[in-house]
Amino acid sequence: MSYQAPAYPLPAVEPDAPEDLLTAFRTVRAATEALCSPLETEDYVIQSMADVSPPKWHLAHVTWFYETFLLKPFLNEYMPLNETYDLLFNSYYETHSSPFPRPRRGLLSRPTVANVYRYRHYVNEAMGRLLNNRPSQHSKAIAERVCLGIHHEQQHQELLAMDIKHILAQNPLRPVYSKRLQIPPGRQPVPMGWHAYEGGLVFVGMKPHSVDFAFDNERPAHRQYLEPFELATRPVTNQEYMRFIEQGGYQDPALWLSDGWHLIRENGWTAPLYWVRDGAQWYHFSLGGWRPVDASAPVCHVSFYEADAYARWAGARLPTEAEWEHSATHARNWHGNFAESGYLQPVAAEAVVPAGDLRDPPLQMFGDVWEWTGSAYRPYPGFRTLSGSLGEYNGKFMSGQMVLRGGCCATPARHIRPTYRNFFPPSARWAFSGFRLAREANE
Amino acid sequence: MSYQAPAYPLPAVEPDAPEDLLTAFRTVRAATEALCSPLETEDYVIQSMADVSPPKWHLAHVTWFYETFLLKPFLNEYMPLNETYDLLFNSYYETHSSPFPRPRRGLLSRPTVANVYRYRHYVNEAMGRLLNNRPSQHSKAIAERVCLGIHHEQQHQELLAMDIKHILAQNPLRPVYSKRLQIPPGRQPVPMGWHAYEGGLVFVGMKPHSVDFAFDNERPAHRQYLEPFELATRPVTNQEYMRFIEQGGYQDPALWLSDGWHLIRENGWTAPLYWVRDGAQWYHFSLGGWRPVDASAPVCHVSFYEADAYARWAGARLPTEAEWEHSATHARNWHGNFAESGYLQPVAAEAVVPAGDLRDPPLQMFGDVWEWTGSAYRPYPGFRTLSGSLGEYNGKFMSGQMVLRGGCCATPARHIRPTYRNFFPPSARWAFSGFRLAREANE
Amino acid sequence: MSYQAPAYPLPAVEPDAPEDLLTAFRTVRAATEALCSPLETEDYVIQSMADVSPPKWHLAHVTWFYETFLLKPFLNEYMPLNETYDLLFNSYYETHSSPFPRPRRGLLSRPTVANVYRYRHYVNEAMGRLLNNRPSQHSKAIAERVCLGIHHEQQHQELLAMDIKHILAQNPLRPVYSKRLQIPPGRQPVPMGWHAYEGGLVFVGMKPHSVDFAFDNERPAHRQYLEPFELATRPVTNQEYMRFIEQGGYQDPALWLSDGWHLIRENGWTAPLYWVRDGAQWYHFSLGGWRPVDASAPVCHVSFYEADAYARWAGARLPTEAEWEHSATHARNWHGNFAESGYLQPVAAEAVVPAGDLRDPPLQMFGDVWEWTGSAYRPYPGFRTLSGSLGEYNGKFMSGQMVLRGGCCATPARHIRPTYRNFFPPSARWAFSGFRLAREANE
Amino acid sequence: MSYQAPAYPLPAVEPDAPEDLLTAFRTVRAATEALCSPLETEDYVIQSMADVSPPKWHLAHVTWFYETFLLKPFLNEYMPLNETYDLLFNSYYETHSSPFPRPRRGLLSRPTVANVYRYRHYVNEAMGRLLNNRPSQHSKAIAERVCLGIHHEQQHQELLAMDIKHILAQNPLRPVYSKRLQIPPGRQPVPMGWHAYEGGLVFVGMKPHSVDFAFDNERPAHRQYLEPFELATRPVTNQEYMRFIEQGGYQDPALWLSDGWHLIRENGWTAPLYWVRDGAQWYHFSLGGWRPVDASAPVCHVSFYEADAYARWAGARLPTEAEWEHSATHARNWHGNFAESGYLQPVAAEAVVPAGDLRDPPLQMFGDVWEWTGSAYRPYPGFRTLSGSLGEYNGKFMSGQMVLRGGCCATPARHIRPTYRNFFPPSARWAFSGFRLAREANE
Repeated sequence: MSYQAPAYPLPAVEPDAPEDLLTAFRTVRAATEALCSPLETEDYVIQSMADVSPPKWHLAHVTWFYETFLLKPFLNEYMPLNETYDLLFNSYYETHSSPFPRPRRGLLSRPTVANVYRYRHYVNEAMGRLLNNRPSQHSKAIAERVCLGIHHEQQHQELLAMDIKHILAQNPLRPVYSKRLQIPPGRQPVPMGWHAYEGGLVFVGMKPHSVDFAFDNERPAHRQYLEPFELATRPVTNQEYMRFIEQGGYQDPALWLSDGWHLIRENGWTAPLYWVRDGAQWYHFSLGGWRPVDASAPVCHVSFYEADAYARWAGARLPTEAEWEHSATHARNWHGNFAESGYLQPVAAEAVVPAGDLRDPPLQMFGDVWEWTGSAYRPYPGFRTLSGSLGEYNGKFMSGQMVLRGGCCATPARHIRPTYRNFFPPSARWAFSGFRLAREANE
Repeated sequence: MSYQAPAYPLPAVEPDAPEDLLTAFRTVRAATEALCSPLETEDYVIQSMADVSPPKWHLAHVTWFYETFLLKPFLNEYMPLNETYDLLFNSYYETHSSPFPRPRRGLLSRPTVANVYRYRHYVNEAMGRLLNNRPSQHSKAIAERVCLGIHHEQQHQELLAMDIKHILAQNPLRPVYSKRLQIPPGRQPVPMGWHAYEGGLVFVGMKPHSVDFAFDNERPAHRQYLEPFELATRPVTNQEYMRFIEQGGYQDPALWLSDGWHLIRENGWTAPLYWVRDGAQWYHFSLGGWRPVDASAPVCHVSFYEADAYARWAGARLPTEAEWEHSATHARNWHGNFAESGYLQPVAAEAVVPAGDLRDPPLQMFGDVWEWTGSAYRPYPGFRTLSGSLGEYNGKFMSGQMVLRGGCCATPARHIRPTYRNFFPPSARWAFSGFRLAREANE
Repeated sequence: MSYQAPAYPLPAVEPDAPEDLLTAFRTVRAATEALCSPLETEDYVIQSMADVSPPKWHLAHVTWFYETFLLKPFLNEYMPLNETYDLLFNSYYETHSSPFPRPRRGLLSRPTVANVYRYRHYVNEAMGRLLNNRPSQHSKAIAERVCLGIHHEQQHQELLAMDIKHILAQNPLRPVYSKRLQIPPGRQPVPMGWHAYEGGLVFVGMKPHSVDFAFDNERPAHRQYLEPFELATRPVTNQEYMRFIEQGGYQDPALWLSDGWHLIRENGWTAPLYWVRDGAQWYHFSLGGWRPVDASAPVCHVSFYEADAYARWAGARLPTEAEWEHSATHARNWHGNFAESGYLQPVAAEAVVPAGDLRDPPLQMFGDVWEWTGSAYRPYPGFRTLSGSLGEYNGKFMSGQMVLRGGCCATPARHIRPTYRNFFPPSARWAFSGFRLAREANE
Repeated sequence: MSYQAPAYPLPAVEPDAPEDLLTAFRTVRAATEALCSPLETEDYVIQSMADVSPPKWHLAHVTWFYETFLLKPFLNEYMPLNETYDLLFNSYYETHSSPFPRPRRGLLSRPTVANVYRYRHYVNEAMGRLLNNRPSQHSKAIAERVCLGIHHEQQHQELLAMDIKHILAQNPLRPVYSKRLQIPPGRQPVPMGWHAYEGGLVFVGMKPHSVDFAFDNERPAHRQYLEPFELATRPVTNQEYMRFIEQGGYQDPALWLSDGWHLIRENGWTAPLYWVRDGAQWYHFSLGGWRPVDASAPVCHVSFYEADAYARWAGARLPTEAEWEHSATHARNWHGNFAESGYLQPVAAEAVVPAGDLRDPPLQMFGDVWEWTGSAYRPYPGFRTLSGSLGEYNGKFMSGQMVLRGGCCATPARHIRPTYRNFFPPSARWAFSGFRLAREANE
């Protein structure tokens, strides 16, 4: 797939090349600000639901991360710009300090957006001094934490895209994030086939001596036994999902997990988030404004419950994360429709292979939509958290969530890998979340 | 009492002088903007609780009022700046259109603050055209509605002060609205006495042929019979209220209305809103920042339940609104600490009379704090609403609320009169609300 | 109106005849148990909403009242049957002890119904000893408290009828309280007329030297000035209310108080409580089972908001409690359809006078339905609570409620009087509440 | 372990012996009623929280199951006792009919307890006719469904014990379910050791040709790869858990999953459910009344979050369900402290082996307490639900829950097996839930 030049610059990040750490740091910092450049000052302040954070909070929080875990411990005589920021921009590190309540982040007009940018520049400048003059006894720790900080900021770039979309969607004025986003190409739908896997004992997780960056939750690598299975050659499309809607999918309790059934009834859900019907045509709110739903593109903004119900309706199931990873590990590359492609929405698969040829690997494993798996988010056997407050990074969220895999149209391209484990509560819909079917072999 | 020049210009309004309508209109419009001039753009966006509106919403809503009730019906070929504003800035006129849900006003980043000001100027300009060229057949209706619009905007000036205070108080950075506010003078407390009234048949409400402006809820004037009563010569002070706290007022159920007792227990209230104790000293958040509580000033930011409990503790009661009005009607003037004095907080009474001389009328009947009365907010006998959507102005709120009288430190001076009926739910505390005691005669 | 013999015996109570106190006590005690006699054991346990109490709680609570306020203070060497009952059956006397939380009353299976009756008999027996052997120095206090206890128990008789109705109505099995209730007579509707009153200075409240029993909230008698007004000659009927429904009353926001409008929208109310439509016919749940709505009977089980909206729709208003009482005071007697008539539901007015003759006093002022007035429930000028815990009897509920007058079909006949002030929150519908129109004179 | 005669008769059930189906059916039916025999009528009516059902609902619901899935489809000319019971006692089979809302089960006084027993006998009699005269073409289906019905009723026997305990615990009168329950023996604590397992490829789930009954969720058997691990030789005891409490376990956020931390803070949990401290001594509410906490017995009534936090504090983790089952599969028998032992609470382990001898298998794998595992409740690879409404039996609850293993002191002994998967939300505490530690090998 050949992608256009991005609408905003999100250049490559090479966190595994320590000599270029400062360049990598500066690149990701600039990319975050480029992502926010179309916003009005007022947009930075809004928290449209408890799960969403105001954009200025994201900008400050990723900055606080470097200040807290790098500048304060390692930069001699570092003076914070404002001591109270520590309280405001600590996201959830309970062992560090008592964080400002998450659902109240949208009540803070101060610091202003201008002051948040001032804070970013202040920390950037100090990070420059630290990285140009690394104390040799902490060199390794610093490099590791900068890498972690860079990946952390990339996570928040994706959250920014999700949150900005949710914020703007509340507004009956229908504001558009950016009119300069790429328009997705019109494409014929690619027929869905099945790719068969033999299963057996496979490795899951990041290998111990890999040079690639990985979060703690991707480790340790370990063996898992897979029964033979088949994986769909592409995600479920909007067209297929519309058929599910039309045939009463949202009205048939036999298709739904019990929690899901109650959720859709209480909330009156009858379609993916951001969809609105006008006569026979479905429209959806995108970062580029309201647009007709593209029948060929992967369905997006569905909860785990909707993905699971669709799969049951289709006589299939969701893959486990081990199945997904086993398939993705054999991908020839990790290309896909990521943030850099400049669409900021999923696009239809390109029929790069003769339709129906199942010997080729699945399409769109990476990018476009995060794919819900059937696996609950739990630690791998032998999982170890990082020490200190950084130990809260991932482990403490390992209950009540489901794993998603593969990245999406708002993920920075260099942020993803086959072992990457994303996670959301099964009810979440504001992420760019879709799904792909799986089934037992020989069905 | 001699007041300083105001920190921001809120000049006199003479709505009863129709030839000066445009001047009055422009003056009140300028005053609203002057009140907001110390704000940062981000401050305009926040809604700190459902009862609070974002400042930019206030700025737009009062403008929408003129557009809807004057420009659209009376200005030839008037074209709204933006048709969708009608949905967003209709506060609650259900018969006009379905209003945007009040608790979601803080989710709207657009229109931006700059666009809201543009909207104001656009409407101001059109109002200039209308008022300079009044169609004679509607001249009276226009004058009446402009007066109503001006008083409406003054109400929102006070709401702006209340809401800005509440918004800034959420922020642990403790932002200050303005450092240029007047500092209240240090004064010795004035002893409280009682002023006796004989009662009998009295008139309540705005007289039919008065030249003064009045809302519909102040009419019609009617007779009421009052038993003899006594009214305290000044409101209850912070010092007195601190004694109530220290002596366990918040712990004794016998002092409280049942709803109030449950409310203070559930919310853990043990002092007025905005009060924080540091050792032996109470501090309060003011629009000028955190300050020590002034023992001599009237207590402020208490609910009706707290006022009522204090009164019971003190062996007294709250006055009825008829008693209050009967007393206020005989005031020599309506002077007081209003918005123009530039404090934006209540200040201690000045001992203008020999202490204890009860022949003089009560102090601080006007300004400083709205005084909770013991009267539920219900229509006067023979009450008539305005016709059309304007009929929703006051009448539909006549349940579940208590009447407050006299205006406060954030009320424009020209907005008040003895017959003025303000109202809030008994649980509200973010208004500048205090109280004055009353009791039966000869107790 | 001539009433049948009651379905259960609720004989007369003469609390003002102290020599017959014990007879009166025993009569009211027996009446309560007669009222419960059709219940199954299981019915006694249910709490169908927070406002409802399980019948066995009522039975025990009224008993606790005598134990606490009479036996413990006045009966020598009285030993409670069970010390823990004091905690369980204290309704709300916060100054007495910390009451068991009201919304959790339905979680208590013990004491069993049999033990509650044992408790009643134990207290009855002790009361017999006390009243047969009154210590002379407390004779007056005892008589007063027994009267209060008797009236208290009568209030709970009515609450029992309301609560039992609400409890049984939850059940899709549609259980019937009693098949032996009287069937209301079929009657032609009586046309509604207006009765004019001149107003002026009137007395409201129980006169100081009256021999009649009265609660504290009916005192002191005081003067009020009434403008001339007119009162409808009978309550609004089901037929009239059906027309309000059919003509879109529940869909027009202009008719409703703001709180009421939000309430009916959130709860989806489109008719009185207990009404269900089957085709063109309305049915209602009664204590005698499901029955067609009687077009001629007064509408019942409406909230204050519905009464108020109807009145606005009809171009009228609700009477104030003073207007109502002024009219009722001139009634020739206080007859009406009370509990003793054995219907336990409102019945159509009997055309005892030539239709349209307005010189006769209004019909159905007493009994049938409690009539919502337009008056908030607040203390009379000079109101004094009883001393001690009994002071909590009425005064502490004087916020957030509206006054109703006249008693209903579930009120014991000897419990009512023209000065009687009942009160409920404006949203309440499970009481037997209807209303009567009023209007200014000469409209 | 030698057990006493049970306090109530819960005889053996042999559902795999089809010729004895009727005996098995009658035995389990009698056992349910024996379990309820100490209850008062009023106890049967209460629903103490949404998760709890009134005992009479359990009695009727298990009966409804036979009526719906056996009598109606297979018994010629079967007439239901009452058609409306179908609505009331359908628990959650959305595809069968719209169930009566679960949280409102406690609002139903009817059918009475006597009528519920009448319903049971009516269905029992009809089941006797069906089983004595099985239509041969449905013989297998009938046998399978009776087995399912018997196991279903056994599940509800355990739920009855849990729910009755919760119901009685609400009552400040501290009622005792039965004074005839066995008193647990006083025992010295058994030291905890570790039992090592080599791991490798193991089978999980019920083997295809097993004669044992199993629910759908235990199937199909499949392979799983286990890393080497160690399992504690007994569950965590009250003594150990008290040390966790004393050393601040409930105050240290680093020990808790994020959801768990918020849960314990919001609910103020600082000890297991039913524990109350009196000075230095902990007491707990048991079905036999309030008793001192037995230091040697397994800790019980803790949530998954508490189990998980304890494990982290102890430097260990919870076992996965595959690890637990792998260990349990090698047990020599499935004996344990089950319902039949007559304690209805967990008891201390008996030191049947020389302390510290790790070659012996773990103690108390079965009975006493359900053991929280670290596994989310999800379908096994190749999972198939039953067809029709019975397909809702287990599968639809496979989100948001954690697996527990091994049965407890309220589980019928013949109900358990090593493959048995119980499940509860991680916040649940009213089940008899404890836990056992695990850890990686060589730690």
